Amino acid sequence: MKTTTNSEQSTLLVSDNPFLQEVVRQIRAYDHYGVYKSWTNELVLGPYVISKQQKREISLEGDIDPATKLRILCFYRAVASLIEKETAQLCQVIVDLNSEGFGWALVWSGRLMTVCRTLRDAHRFGFDSLEKLAAQGEKITQSGIEVVQRFPEVARF
Amino acid sequence: MKTTTNSEQSTLLVSDNPFLQEVVRQIRAYDHYGVYKSWTNELVLGPYVISKQQKREISLEGDIDPATKLRILCFYRAVASLIEKETAQLCQVIVDLNSEGFGWALVWSGRLMTVCRTLRDAHRFGFDSLEKLAAQGEKITQSGIEVVQRFPEVARF
Repeated sequence: MKTTTNSEQSTLLVSDNPFLQEVVRQIRAYDHYGVYKSWTNELVLGPYVISKQQKREISLEGDIDPATKLRILCFYRAVASLIEKETAQLCQVIVDLNSEGFGWALVWSGRLMTVCRTLRDAHRFGFDSLEKLAAQGEKITQSGIEVVQRFPEVARF
Repeated sequence: MKTTTNSEQSTLLVSDNPFLQEVVRQIRAYDHYGVYKSWTNELVLGPYVISKQQKREISLEGDIDPATKLRILCFYRAVASLIEKETAQLCQVIVDLNSEGFGWALVWSGRLMTVCRTLRDAHRFGFDSLEKLAAQGEKITQSGIEVVQRFPEVARF
């Protein structure tokens, strides 16, 4: 479990960061069989941390690993959940990927697309560190919140 | 080919209807091997026409037939294409379905969701007649155009 080691080296505690906490919550919501029950939050987030070297080793051929797909979905669900908390608008999430790892991640609220990102090389979805994961998540969340604040009537439509 | 007969009974000519013409264009764009080359437009649209009786006979179990999925996609691509023509805003289309036939059909432009429909029983996607197909398509297109006209700055965002 190389990837786990990466996240354990991190100095950022999940309990200090609302975005990481939310990602953990989303993953645990999918844990129907309680596999992660005894795992620490850092261990649960482990697979999100992938070094550049490890990324290169992941083949882009063939279908995306369902676990990777779920990780991407949980990331954007966490974004959506924090946008919801801030704006009090219900958000929907779709991650639509083809087998080549290209696709869209969408979060919308009413008729307003709050997050609209193209994905590529989704097989290799991951971050250098938990800090980077948190920073990227917060950035996307913040930009989503600003879109809702700019066009509130579309989000309520 | 029961379904083909249904559309041939129709009194509506495809060449008289811009929406049906656009659906045909979308389907032919996917016809990489020229299977439909010698087919009439009415024959190409044939599988869109399914009687209530035929619908009941389609099982909702198992994955959706890829041909049905492509038919749904072509329907919404036609909607998007006509919204584009009318509003001069580029549209993106996603049809996202799970194996139970539930999901979303989305058309968006900039940050504005012009069409946002939940789908259910997608296995049985079809219409009583070509007239019904055209009417439904035109209705969805029109409502999309109105959303763009109402929030033009979001569509351009």
